[in-house]
Amino acid sequence: MKGKVYLVGAGPGDPELLTVRAVRLLESADAVLYDDLVSAEIVNLIPARAQRHNVGKRCGKKKILQQEINFLMIALADSGLRVVRLKSGDPLIFGRAGEEIESLRRAGIPHEIVPGVTSALGAAAAGQIPLTHRQKSSALVLLTAHHASGKASSDWTWLAGSGATLVIYMPGGDYGATSAKLKSAGLASETPCAMVSRATTSRQRIHRTTIGELGQAPPLPAPTLLIVGEVARFADASVEQFAVRTNHEFSLPVALFREPSSPSPEEEPIP
Amino acid sequence: MKGKVYLVGAGPGDPELLTVRAVRLLESADAVLYDDLVSAEIVNLIPARAQRHNVGKRCGKKKILQQEINFLMIALADSGLRVVRLKSGDPLIFGRAGEEIESLRRAGIPHEIVPGVTSALGAAAAGQIPLTHRQKSSALVLLTAHHASGKASSDWTWLAGSGATLVIYMPGGDYGATSAKLKSAGLASETPCAMVSRATTSRQRIHRTTIGELGQAPPLPAPTLLIVGEVARFADASVEQFAVRTNHEFSLPVALFREPSSPSPEEEPIP
Repeated sequence: MKGKVYLVGAGPGDPELLTVRAVRLLESADAVLYDDLVSAEIVNLIPARAQRHNVGKRCGKKKILQQEINFLMIALADSGLRVVRLKSGDPLIFGRAGEEIESLRRAGIPHEIVPGVTSALGAAAAGQIPLTHRQKSSALVLLTAHHASGKASSDWTWLAGSGATLVIYMPGGDYGATSAKLKSAGLASETPCAMVSRATTSRQRIHRTTIGELGQAPPLPAPTLLIVGEVARFADASVEQFAVRTNHEFSLPVALFREPSSPSPEEEPIP
Repeated sequence: MKGKVYLVGAGPGDPELLTVRAVRLLESADAVLYDDLVSAEIVNLIPARAQRHNVGKRCGKKKILQQEINFLMIALADSGLRVVRLKSGDPLIFGRAGEEIESLRRAGIPHEIVPGVTSALGAAAAGQIPLTHRQKSSALVLLTAHHASGKASSDWTWLAGSGATLVIYMPGGDYGATSAKLKSAGLASETPCAMVSRATTSRQRIHRTTIGELGQAPPLPAPTLLIVGEVARFADASVEQFAVRTNHEFSLPVALFREPSSPSPEEEPIP
């Protein structure tokens, strides 16, 4: 019997930001293929009996080709295993899920997509930055400074005058180049922006600046995201510089989804 | 002692797509303020001992003013309660969280934002539509057909030629008007699109069409989302018309996050 592949979003970093469905699938997986950007705390949730495959291809260092990932995923499912393909954030945003879905369809492997909290939402929550706002921004644009293929992305001149909030995934370490690219796209130098590093983890850092002064910002550790637009003014002043968020407890068992119809234990008299 | 307000994303509909953190907060809440778009299955997870406040303001029917929601939230927290402000999708996207955060800051109420799976990601996962694609689309734009204030949104001409995938939240029932607006923004009539209704719930429906033929699409029940762009071609053919997804079991208790360092029970020999 054929197995099944689940393309699952791992969220922005904090294991508590996994969906309940993602946790259930990890708990019952026979094999998990995960990217470098999936946090160690989440990798630790993979049961000991399951196969673990790190198929990370970070920053252009192509340890494993996309075709090889597709092949491995299909081979494991073909042998009857329950395979979780775990991707940082949401699988359908900058995650090459399109190519993986096509290969699964061609191979006739049953599959399902489980959405996750994309990194932009984690970064915005961490900095308390509303991504849309009735007065300030009625649209949100997610884009990358680099294509997955390593080429520089296409021009951004269409963004000028949109008034949209931008979130740039994988802006890279050359903040001056990003600043120049935003300015040459027609965005004003004084537009506020916030660089968010390792959002929702205990090593989270946020730096608030403007497009014009982005080049002078301190280098922050990857993964980073850049939020650009009037809404960045709302960034929480208390996390303006280098905020470290205390982590929640995340090794406790919890009883989820008690039966809504049955009364909770403290209300039920013991006969 | 002052309480605290948690602005929490409820995800796209399926209770299994709540984050672990959201479930924990619901379980320990003293009061929950939720919108109309939060699904009944999720509202049922609110413990019986907690106050429930439906503060929905759907489709312009302003049952409760935004100021009144802010006031209620602050009053409850001020009296020492742990308050969950539960919003459909992610709180920072089209959810007026900016206004609520400002009022909480002004009132000096401790608060935290818990991101959620925004509806666009739920709809895309349901239809197996990659929102970005190396060959087809390097950017994603989230926008609404109507501002929260009820006014028609600003013009969309900046989107022409962007090549970005668009996801239109709350497109409304007049598909012909949406089609006309997209065409007048400069998008080609033959651009594929997919209307997704009640994504990730058991009543989910998907209709795949083009911008030109959108006006002839069957009306689907709200909430709907419209995904526009070349990537909509990837929509799963098996869910092209009116697919109903079987729901997962979601009333089972589950032991989350077993201690990574301790061996699992089946491996531990009983002495």
